[in-house]
Amino acid sequence: MTYCLGIVTRQGVVMASDSRTNAGYDQVNITRKMFTFVKDGDRVFIVLTSGSLSCSQSIITLLQADFDAGRGLATAGTMYDAARVIGEKIRHVADVDRPALERDDYKFNVHFLLGGQVRGGPPDLYLIYPQGNPLRATEDSPFLQIGEVKYGRPILDRGIVFEKTSLDEAARYAIISVDSTMRSNVTVGPPIDLAVYGRDELTLQRRRRFGPRDPDMLEIHQRWEQSLRKAVAELPSIAFGNNGEPAR
Amino acid sequence: MTYCLGIVTRQGVVMASDSRTNAGYDQVNITRKMFTFVKDGDRVFIVLTSGSLSCSQSIITLLQADFDAGRGLATAGTMYDAARVIGEKIRHVADVDRPALERDDYKFNVHFLLGGQVRGGPPDLYLIYPQGNPLRATEDSPFLQIGEVKYGRPILDRGIVFEKTSLDEAARYAIISVDSTMRSNVTVGPPIDLAVYGRDELTLQRRRRFGPRDPDMLEIHQRWEQSLRKAVAELPSIAFGNNGEPAR
Repeated sequence: MTYCLGIVTRQGVVMASDSRTNAGYDQVNITRKMFTFVKDGDRVFIVLTSGSLSCSQSIITLLQADFDAGRGLATAGTMYDAARVIGEKIRHVADVDRPALERDDYKFNVHFLLGGQVRGGPPDLYLIYPQGNPLRATEDSPFLQIGEVKYGRPILDRGIVFEKTSLDEAARYAIISVDSTMRSNVTVGPPIDLAVYGRDELTLQRRRRFGPRDPDMLEIHQRWEQSLRKAVAELPSIAFGNNGEPAR
Repeated sequence: MTYCLGIVTRQGVVMASDSRTNAGYDQVNITRKMFTFVKDGDRVFIVLTSGSLSCSQSIITLLQADFDAGRGLATAGTMYDAARVIGEKIRHVADVDRPALERDDYKFNVHFLLGGQVRGGPPDLYLIYPQGNPLRATEDSPFLQIGEVKYGRPILDRGIVFEKTSLDEAARYAIISVDSTMRSNVTVGPPIDLAVYGRDELTLQRRRRFGPRDPDMLEIHQRWEQSLRKAVAELPSIAFGNNGEPAR
């Protein structure tokens, strides 16, 4: 499995991904799921992937080849166009691989997240489905997730507000969301890749990989756990007035 | 969908359930998923159900009829025996209904949680599968969930410790776990039923139903959200030392 998320706020975009892949229970490996395509002063794209590693690798390989040749993501005029470039590449690889996969009952199930900015437009965040169609994050739904999405969602639901959440806070929410997912599900694991992109920077300055024993990560993990327990301890006690009357 | 959970600690058992049922998107109703079977001084059983309402209702109806006639849960000698009584009733209804359900591609998918105590034994917590086999909570895994289980799990993973968590705390964790799930998933909804059973009480004194506008529930919800945001704000800022170097 995999867990990747993107957050967009007034100030910019935060992207985070885990690095665990598994085929069944035995073949557990580390693989990076964050890829960046940057032309300083012009465009920054941060791409996260989930689903069949073989298929998402093919898509990234082809996107990278186009980008290096000055095509595709290198020339997309807007974030919407960039999402469509990724969608077209997903459809291309689907055309190549789906028939053989489906013949053996495998699904073509890659999902992509795209965050970043093209000069002249705002920072933006998209999810691209296995069918190639893009979904945009909005001010009311300012985060998008792919992979094992449920464990890490409550903290985002409670915390992320497009107009209010700072990039620095959004980065902490992202780390806590990934950490919570790792705590509850063994198919999501370190290292965690984190990228923070500020509106109109048009270059990627803040990027970090947290390994399994990263001291900053351990401190966040421990302080978060302590804060949660303290918060529970400080909640009011629950009163039981009905003294056992059944609620029927 | 549904969300039910049970927590067992040294001090006793806490059980909580939501009340939303839906068939597709249209037929959304309120139904109680918590049922109690009590003989004061002798036994307390709190039963929670998820899955097809028609099937779980049948099972509860038959368990209740037996109990009222002094059979089944009324005479089970241990919590293990009680879990087996429920498992046998699940198998009975499965025998009655599975063939017709499966002919129309429905699954027989009821899950039950059983918490409580029989005089002479310890408080205990079981999950009973659609196949009737029981799973017992342990000191290392002191909570069990059924239904829409993922959203509400991280807070339990971080907080519940069999030897340390008080019943009062466990009740708050249960409420927060259900509240988090309701916040992130519309198929889980109020009222929330809560039962708190203390070791060796052998009667059920603390039971409460929280409606959608229950003031205590709203206060817990708001204070929890404030505490989470404060906890995030107090975490250390994330440092970015590598200044954009790719992690490849």
